[in-house]
This record gives sequence, C-alpha cells and structure tokens, in this order.
Amino acid sequence: MILIRIEVEVRPTEDVGKVKKALLNLFTIKRDDIKIVDLDNEYKLLVIEKRNLSPLFKFHDLLRQERILDSARNVLLNSRSGNIITFKLHKQSAYVGRISFVSYDDESPLGPITITITSDKINEIIDWLAPKTKAGKPLWEKEVPKV
Amino acid sequence: MILIRIEVEVRPTEDVGKVKKALLNLFTIKRDDIKIVDLDNEYKLLVIEKRNLSPLFKFHDLLRQERILDSARNVLLNSRSGNIITFKLHKQSAYVGRISFVSYDDESPLGPITITITSDKINEIIDWLAPKTKAGKPLWEKEVPKV
Repeated sequence: MILIRIEVEVRPTEDVGKVKKALLNLFTIKRDDIKIVDLDNEYKLLVIEKRNLSPLFKFHDLLRQERILDSARNVLLNSRSGNIITFKLHKQSAYVGRISFVSYDDESPLGPITITITSDKINEIIDWLAPKTKAGKPLWEKEVPKV
Repeated sequence: MILIRIEVEVRPTEDVGKVKKALLNLFTIKRDDIKIVDLDNEYKLLVIEKRNLSPLFKFHDLLRQERILDSARNVLLNSRSGNIITFKLHKQSAYVGRISFVSYDDESPLGPITITITSDKINEIIDWLAPKTKAGKPLWEKEVPKV
C-alpha cells in the first residue's frame, strides 16, 4: 500500500508554469499529473497523487547527485509518524533544480513543497531513498521497494 | 528635497508582470518607471526612484478608500528615522489592489514591497498622507506638500 501526495501553493504573484517546473525538476511526473485547485484570493494549489513510488525516482537520484543522503535520512526519520512521512522542500531551490529541506514553514518564503508518503513499508522506503552512509558513501543501495 | 524609492524582489517562481501589476495597483507610476535589476540565482529586483511625491498619489487615495488612516499614521511615525521613512507592504495584497502593512519581513512570505521616503519635509508628508482622525474622519486634509 502506498500513496504519494505532493502539493505546493501558487501565490498570486507567482507563475503557475514556473511552479510546475519546480515540481518537474525534482519528481518523476508528467505535466498532466498535476491537478490545479483554485483557492480563495487568487491562490492556487498544485497537487499530485500517485499510488506508486515512481514520482520519487528523480528525487532518489538527486539525493545522491547532491550528496545529501545523511541529512535526507535524518529528515525522513524525524518526520515519520507511524505509516506516514511528511516533509517540506524549498520551492525556490526546486525551481533551480536543487533539493533543500525546510524545517519550518517560514524558512521557505513562498510556501514550501509538501511531500506526504503513506505506506505500510515506510522503513523500506526510507532505506531505499536515503541509506546510511560511511565516509560519504552509502552503506547499501536497495532495489525499489515492492509496495 | 525628496526621493521616493520603491523596491520589491521577484523570486524565481514569480512572474515579473504580476509583480509589476502589484506595484501599479498601489502607486501612480508607469511601467517604464520600473527598473529591473538581475540578482543572483534567478532573483530580480524591481526598483522605482522618483524625485517628487507623484508615486504616492494613488497610495494616498487608497489609504482613505480602505479607511486605514490611523494604522498608516502609526506605521509612518514609527518607521521614521530623521529625514527618512522606510515601511513595507505585503506584495500579495498589493496584487489584489489592497494595502497591507508588514511589521516583520516574515509576515510577507514573498518578500515585501519596501518604500523609502527621504525628505527634509517628512512631517508634512506624513500629515498629508495620513492625517489624524476622530471618529474615523480625518481632522484635516492638506494639499500635496511642496518638496
């Protein structure tokens, strides 16, 4: 069982296309996967929901390219609550193709990208996304969990 | 002597045209008055500088339309330092044509609009923009100060 939910706010002065690009930079998704929800006062919400791990493939690879497995593992472990992980990424960094974790909402001035992973295999997902490292190298590399 | 400086950041996921619109909603300026400065990492700065009070004409009228003379007067008096006033407005509110003062930068998630007024007639400018009120009505309405 798996549900991946990715959502991000589009504020009035933002460009929907640019916020979509920020998502496409970090996640393995298609433009058509992104639903646009109209909120009040010209605010919108972009939402992606998938019942498989595929959106995280690009994210998985970027964690290695950017050499941030340790901090990613910490974030994932600390943001776990039972079968659910919720963590936030900086939207402006995403727009330039970089992963930057947000600890508090006010660190990301435009409203962060929020990722929620719900699964009964949450440990396997963490171990797959962000293995422990030693001297900067992963201690293991797992196959994509069967969820 | 007068210098009005209005500046606002355009963050990567924002649309320059929409941020310009936010400025045009509140200030009596033309599109050509807005200079675009490229900052690092796809951030930009929009800047307007004028050596007369004309940019504030629309702002002056909006303070009355929105019935926020009291809070405006407080903000102006409190943000005065010698010959200079610096205050901040919420960018997202400006986009929908509304004045909303920002006390701390983090209240305006996209980076506020910053207005700096430098003049040796700063008291006259405050009294013109935001007179004292009684029972919600201005105690006076002054002509545009000769600066």
